[in-house]
Amino acid sequence: MNLSQNELLIDLSNIPGLEKIIVDAQEMGSFIEEPRKRYSTKARAVVFPKTVMALQNLVKWANLNKTPLIPQGGNTGMVGGQVPLSGTEIIVSLSKINQLRNIDVEAGHMCVEGGMVLQTAQEIAQENNLLFPLSIASEGSAQIGGVLSSNAGGVQVLAYGNARQLCMGVEAVLPDGSLFQGLNALKKNNTGYDISNLLVGAEGTLGFITAATLKLFPAPISFETAWINVSSPDIALQLFSALRAGLGTSLTAFELMPRFGIDIQLRHKMISADPSPSDSPWYVLAEVSVAKNGAEGTLLKNLETAFEAGLITDASIASSLQERQNMWQTREQMSQSQSREGASIKHDVSVPVSRVPELIERGNAVAKTIVPGIRPCPFGHLGDGNIHFNFSQPVEADPKAFMAGAQKIHDGIYEIVADLGGSISAEHGIGQLKTDLLEQVKDPVALSAMRAIKKALDPNNICNPGKVLKQI
Amino acid sequence: MNLSQNELLIDLSNIPGLEKIIVDAQEMGSFIEEPRKRYSTKARAVVFPKTVMALQNLVKWANLNKTPLIPQGGNTGMVGGQVPLSGTEIIVSLSKINQLRNIDVEAGHMCVEGGMVLQTAQEIAQENNLLFPLSIASEGSAQIGGVLSSNAGGVQVLAYGNARQLCMGVEAVLPDGSLFQGLNALKKNNTGYDISNLLVGAEGTLGFITAATLKLFPAPISFETAWINVSSPDIALQLFSALRAGLGTSLTAFELMPRFGIDIQLRHKMISADPSPSDSPWYVLAEVSVAKNGAEGTLLKNLETAFEAGLITDASIASSLQERQNMWQTREQMSQSQSREGASIKHDVSVPVSRVPELIERGNAVAKTIVPGIRPCPFGHLGDGNIHFNFSQPVEADPKAFMAGAQKIHDGIYEIVADLGGSISAEHGIGQLKTDLLEQVKDPVALSAMRAIKKALDPNNICNPGKVLKQI
Repeated sequence: MNLSQNELLIDLSNIPGLEKIIVDAQEMGSFIEEPRKRYSTKARAVVFPKTVMALQNLVKWANLNKTPLIPQGGNTGMVGGQVPLSGTEIIVSLSKINQLRNIDVEAGHMCVEGGMVLQTAQEIAQENNLLFPLSIASEGSAQIGGVLSSNAGGVQVLAYGNARQLCMGVEAVLPDGSLFQGLNALKKNNTGYDISNLLVGAEGTLGFITAATLKLFPAPISFETAWINVSSPDIALQLFSALRAGLGTSLTAFELMPRFGIDIQLRHKMISADPSPSDSPWYVLAEVSVAKNGAEGTLLKNLETAFEAGLITDASIASSLQERQNMWQTREQMSQSQSREGASIKHDVSVPVSRVPELIERGNAVAKTIVPGIRPCPFGHLGDGNIHFNFSQPVEADPKAFMAGAQKIHDGIYEIVADLGGSISAEHGIGQLKTDLLEQVKDPVALSAMRAIKKALDPNNICNPGKVLKQI
Repeated sequence: MNLSQNELLIDLSNIPGLEKIIVDAQEMGSFIEEPRKRYSTKARAVVFPKTVMALQNLVKWANLNKTPLIPQGGNTGMVGGQVPLSGTEIIVSLSKINQLRNIDVEAGHMCVEGGMVLQTAQEIAQENNLLFPLSIASEGSAQIGGVLSSNAGGVQVLAYGNARQLCMGVEAVLPDGSLFQGLNALKKNNTGYDISNLLVGAEGTLGFITAATLKLFPAPISFETAWINVSSPDIALQLFSALRAGLGTSLTAFELMPRFGIDIQLRHKMISADPSPSDSPWYVLAEVSVAKNGAEGTLLKNLETAFEAGLITDASIASSLQERQNMWQTREQMSQSQSREGASIKHDVSVPVSRVPELIERGNAVAKTIVPGIRPCPFGHLGDGNIHFNFSQPVEADPKAFMAGAQKIHDGIYEIVADLGGSISAEHGIGQLKTDLLEQVKDPVALSAMRAIKKALDPNNICNPGKVLKQI
């Protein structure tokens, strides 16, 4: 783009429906710095279209002027997908396109705009005695368009699926400024290619998701939550298989944790009481969501069967809301508790569910060979095959020296993940952080098909260039 | 293609791994005639690659010689997608690439090849005490590759979803002969565009699905089945909403039927007993699948609540396998029973679930205006918004004269479907039958994106040209 800053301002001011145009570096701060503080390249501007039509006009203008655009929601992404890369980009905030368009309580779906905050969407569902089950740590800021563009996961994927499975279709401004209308709330519709699913997970490189039809579920009336001793990840896997067979999709959480993660929380007084029934190298947090008119006590019944089968030796079932909360708090603090023990190296990886025990065993062994004394803390959504494979530094090691060797640990873990047919990015996506890594590990035929599609739909490379695909 | 038939034969014979080459018209019969006997254009040849590699070589050869290829599974499609259009095509039967590659009983998935017959896949699941829930009338012949390429639906979509939802990823030979490897059995994998979902439902126009990772579910241990009086489709919808809230995904069937469909089956002795508890203009067949260790009696409990709420007045719960079978037989014979009453006009349409009552009311009214005395028989998967909107001729009308006016009825129904945000092809796809109709009703931006993708991935228009998209 060869426009001067002044020409740019004049051009943008002439596009009707842009509510605000930020060009001042100071004011731009919260839009260009992301949660991990890895990137802070200045954008040429930040703009706020008030309507879908305004966004279409902006995108058409961008094509004429070959100006790259970055779709941005709540700026909560972890891989730099929503912030500048070259500095020639204009950030397009979807935050003003944020309305509920309609809700169908009987059929269980609603249509909301891309700029709606995730928590607002959850609250609308709740007000209608329904559940929008997508739940992530950043739900107070993350927006629906971003959540879908990054195919977010979260703690309820086991029963309800990730963002992709929770979306029936999208409306999107495509890279040429045309408006794709795929919002139909149809469970069956075999009339051509699945464009909506192409846009979901494309991290804004194929267009701007301006609205989506989201699935809603009956709100559970109560929860049954247990903290269960398991002797190994392998036994945890067998328990998962047994509970899944007995409980079906009423089993809404199955989280694996090592004793180490509880010990450090107790040591640093991050929890008031140990939720564990007794000492064990590993634990599982399992939860059943009880439907209206559904049967109660099914978790206990299934745990008794597992006990009789010799699978487990001890378990606590939460007998109060307070106890349930303590269990979940212990689970949720797993990651942050590591900071109390010095430096840590983290990975968000997934493998087929059945390979989780092997992943943990081999990953621990490799890390211990590279850094003797390293303290592994692998935990997470065993039922999704998604393990947060984290490592704390050895006791009394130098944090900086430990982190300087991080790449070796990364290489070791990613090699095992590849060997097990897994993914180097289970939840967070590629953004600008992992484009090199993607080129190393992804099926080259898939990469080539992705490039062909990107070129076909975005020949001027307007939408979020350099993200996901480094080069096209 | 300018090759003579002789040159063609020599070329094909030189591709290693083609098990058989049919060029004789007689022998070609069962591969070029499809179930509805609408099309019977001869292909240039029918070939049977024995391996994925052989298929890749064939596709590469086809690009060099600009020869169109038609992927064919069990030849059970209803819209002519799997048979020739111009007569210049070679039919490629996937039937020799039909093995089980692996099964993971604990995690609940298996990888099977594209040419495996659907029923074989169901049986493999069953032998492992698991369920592959996709079930369609043609399951004894239909093959996995075709089932996925057409995104088949069937009777269990309500709880388990259609083919798309049952597939974790595919392997496919792309139009340039390269092999896309997307079989990873991962529940979470955010590493680029969703190519697998693009191939699912593309009806073979973007490549050949050679293998797929399919989801498996715990096999239910029993069923609770009820035949329920409802006074109208609107009340049926309210009942669906109530049962769904109470039963969640254990509610695996919810089928709506009019009295007319039962009357004609009794009249022609197609059923031995009326499954209805008493007279009613409409009925619902609802079924709960009981999981291992799951609670029994939940359907009865929920129906009692509906009764107390004044939603329903009468219902029968099947007390034997025989009674359950009679209920399902009555449901399944709905369509064929119409042939006993003369000619009939049929539509496979879907609308948002909440609009089904309006669809039925308006559709019946329009048809009765066009053909006084017409006898509507709308029935089907209310829970999916998918209604088989069928009409029997007036009593004693001339069948030919009735069918001569079919287009007016089609136009009337499709107009209402469009108005309600519905789909003109809920299950069967576009094939060659509905390409004109698709161009009339589909979002032009979606069509244009589809064409761009088709051109990008298949620049020589090798894979099933003229299907889905008439022109590119």
